[in-house]
Amino acid sequence: MIFLYVWKLQSCWLFYSFRASVLCFHLWGGSLGRGLASRSESELWTGPGCTTLSQLCPDGTRDYGPKQMAIRERAFNAIISCFKRHGAEVIDTPVFELKETLTGKYGEDSKLIYDLKDQGGELLSLRYDLTVPFARYLAMNKITNIKRYHIAKVYRRDNPAMTRGRYREFYQCDFDIAGQFDPMIPDAECLKIVHEILSDLQLGDFIIKVNDRRILDGMFAVCGVPDSKFRTICSSVDKLDKVPWEEVRSEMVGEKGLSPEAADRIGEYVQLHGGLDLIERLLQDPKLSQNKLAKEGLGDMKLLFEYLTLFGITEKISFDLSLARGLDYYTGVIFEAVLLHQENEHVEEAVSVGSVAGGGRYDGLVGMFDPKGRKVPCVGVSIGIERIFSILEQRLEASEEKIRTTETQVLVASAQKKLLEERLKLISELWDGGIKAEMLYKKNPKLLNQLQYCEDTGIPLVAIVGEQELKDGVVKLRIVATREEINVRRESLVEEIRIRTSQC
Amino acid sequence: MIFLYVWKLQSCWLFYSFRASVLCFHLWGGSLGRGLASRSESELWTGPGCTTLSQLCPDGTRDYGPKQMAIRERAFNAIISCFKRHGAEVIDTPVFELKETLTGKYGEDSKLIYDLKDQGGELLSLRYDLTVPFARYLAMNKITNIKRYHIAKVYRRDNPAMTRGRYREFYQCDFDIAGQFDPMIPDAECLKIVHEILSDLQLGDFIIKVNDRRILDGMFAVCGVPDSKFRTICSSVDKLDKVPWEEVRSEMVGEKGLSPEAADRIGEYVQLHGGLDLIERLLQDPKLSQNKLAKEGLGDMKLLFEYLTLFGITEKISFDLSLARGLDYYTGVIFEAVLLHQENEHVEEAVSVGSVAGGGRYDGLVGMFDPKGRKVPCVGVSIGIERIFSILEQRLEASEEKIRTTETQVLVASAQKKLLEERLKLISELWDGGIKAEMLYKKNPKLLNQLQYCEDTGIPLVAIVGEQELKDGVVKLRIVATREEINVRRESLVEEIRIRTSQC
Repeated sequence: MIFLYVWKLQSCWLFYSFRASVLCFHLWGGSLGRGLASRSESELWTGPGCTTLSQLCPDGTRDYGPKQMAIRERAFNAIISCFKRHGAEVIDTPVFELKETLTGKYGEDSKLIYDLKDQGGELLSLRYDLTVPFARYLAMNKITNIKRYHIAKVYRRDNPAMTRGRYREFYQCDFDIAGQFDPMIPDAECLKIVHEILSDLQLGDFIIKVNDRRILDGMFAVCGVPDSKFRTICSSVDKLDKVPWEEVRSEMVGEKGLSPEAADRIGEYVQLHGGLDLIERLLQDPKLSQNKLAKEGLGDMKLLFEYLTLFGITEKISFDLSLARGLDYYTGVIFEAVLLHQENEHVEEAVSVGSVAGGGRYDGLVGMFDPKGRKVPCVGVSIGIERIFSILEQRLEASEEKIRTTETQVLVASAQKKLLEERLKLISELWDGGIKAEMLYKKNPKLLNQLQYCEDTGIPLVAIVGEQELKDGVVKLRIVATREEINVRRESLVEEIRIRTSQC
Repeated sequence: MIFLYVWKLQSCWLFYSFRASVLCFHLWGGSLGRGLASRSESELWTGPGCTTLSQLCPDGTRDYGPKQMAIRERAFNAIISCFKRHGAEVIDTPVFELKETLTGKYGEDSKLIYDLKDQGGELLSLRYDLTVPFARYLAMNKITNIKRYHIAKVYRRDNPAMTRGRYREFYQCDFDIAGQFDPMIPDAECLKIVHEILSDLQLGDFIIKVNDRRILDGMFAVCGVPDSKFRTICSSVDKLDKVPWEEVRSEMVGEKGLSPEAADRIGEYVQLHGGLDLIERLLQDPKLSQNKLAKEGLGDMKLLFEYLTLFGITEKISFDLSLARGLDYYTGVIFEAVLLHQENEHVEEAVSVGSVAGGGRYDGLVGMFDPKGRKVPCVGVSIGIERIFSILEQRLEASEEKIRTTETQVLVASAQKKLLEERLKLISELWDGGIKAEMLYKKNPKLLNQLQYCEDTGIPLVAIVGEQELKDGVVKLRIVATREEINVRRESLVEEIRIRTSQC
């Protein structure tokens, strides 16, 4: 399959350790700055283009240059590998949806939705996440059973904080399981997936907080929160990872009109976190155990922990009553993965990270799009890739690992003048033979410049045509790293290059 | 590298010929309809969901279901392979740009740009193509030399004609070479790339029309078109692939106020098409040869054909004086690839195709974004993927090839009840060993249903746990195609599955 063979080589070529001298080569500066590597006209790598005209790019967005794309590919490949390991199919949806599709799904966050201008026709909005489009897709196609992933950009008119990885345009990598199944098996798999991805990416220590909306709602009920205030009090609790309890309490009492007694009762619960022992304790809690919702949630939480024990990952899981999650559509288990500290402590100005993945169960969302309200239970996880990028970028910078941004196997070069036609003929043969080949776009380039280009860009081989070689029916193949040169018969060149670049 | 190994398997697994019986399985119906395959609750593939609620998706957009994504991946892999074979790096830019970035770049087509609503802050528009964002990126980062590709969606408020592959949201696959180089070498490479991609994808016979804006402008001058009317007359000529000369002529004379004599002189030129012979003839043309621009353009066209002869592709190239291209920013060579006929003539209602790739030289665009107007010469090509999808979809339908939408290697199954925990333990071991594994999310699934799931989805192996196997420390591995069953020691299972699924 010609379509796919390139990937077999990619693993060899993506990352290349420069053994030869490297002039003027270094990675871009800031962790998230727009300083992209650029090449000067002399075909040498120069420093980052620091004097960018940043006003040319919309607020909260960024370009990805070739090096940043290479890092992005690393992260995506780890994530996609994991999703495929778990048997997921892939889908894609449009970047904008009908405005009404998004209306009423995001609670207080709805104000952050980007609308398109009314230029006649339908009212449209840019997608805010991938979950609502997924639910719309399921309802529209009457799909009641699917395991899919979707990696795409989403849009939020938030205050950008780009050095902390908060953008207005950013990627989400979503994995969801839709269908009516026996309880907690898909939910446990979602947590296993988060665990696998964060372990694979080696982002340092992490913890996955788990809770359940039913436990939260049951807790609110037994603490004396009126039904009508459940969602808004839930939003307050959601802030506990960023602000101290005292502030959250005063928001509950002051702004949201909750009684101080109810707030204090909540305060006792939301300090709790633990494992199976805590679940058992709460199942015995005189108040919670009397609440139907809380009891259901705690029973399922216990089952979840049993499955996670079989997966061997409970060490990284914390049942945490302060976890609330902002979005309205969750109905059961919710979770959020948090990095505990920055791996490369020696890096100055470590990227402040935090939540890198989140998700939960949303059994009611699909039904909101179905004319007859038919429900499709769903559970899923979303990996927030921008913060992970920041860390990978920073780590790469610290490691001084050089990164290749092309996969070129060979440069077609000439030793004398007037050989442009011969270079064109040879490179055409190589391309047609499936070899990744470049040449300098000059009529008469100097051999030294051609060799230098290879050293600068990591191209491992040079195929040199000269008048003598043409007469002899051979091509001189130079191995850049060792400076060794061998004559290869022209008809064997494709095979020779393939062999020499297949090992890593 | 764990990040990349998955691709090595993909070529084996993406397309799987079902040998076993396949119940209820067939591809979706119409060539571009939204009928996506869905799974029923019994975990069997069912027919396409034909009764879609199409009003839930914005006009001119579509979802891609798992099967459509598999086809899309095929096309992208062919295109990306080619771009990488030519040594291109990859970049990405935001989906929206500042409105002013797009203003004044697209001529008469500017009315098709999607604007975002003014919600405070900057005025934004969705990108209309990838060329203008690329030029903005080069200027902003002061890059004067790069060869890059970019594959992303672009947006046009056009009248959608989805059965003909015309959408409001669609992919472009762009390859561009920026930098000051010796003439026509990068231009020739762009044409080589189009030739390689269209040949690889086996879309049937095609022709690549080539012209040069300087030849067109020279022609207009010698035909007596006033300077001020060059661009608008150029737009009229651009319509010649869709409407007959008489209509174009009456637009020139009637709407655009050109003299009938000038129009008739143009009429004589725009009928011409050919190869090197025609270039030679026009270089001797008493009028054209006196025009500086035309002479330059014809000289370069001759050089281009010499290089294309070395590449061995002139057979598919036609120097065509009626080719004009709509966009304002072209300054030199322009080209457009057209499919000549539909490959699968036996398919009813063949997708009407046409242009599938286009491009040209735009030496002035980057300078429009540079405060000092510094120019960076560029040439590039854009592959229009939607029409190619239509053809690939149709062909797949006609071929009755079955397509797999997951890469799952093994289903973890149980032969008796009460083995959910054992299945969870085993699947966890397989995932951790890098094996793509699924299980049914049921406590006590029937073995028959588990085997049926494999046949329906193309999973080649089943790892069966039973009480006896657990006692013996083995797992029963069943090969779905042959129904052969062997006992494998548990510690060898990962390796055994890897070996059995590595050959294709």
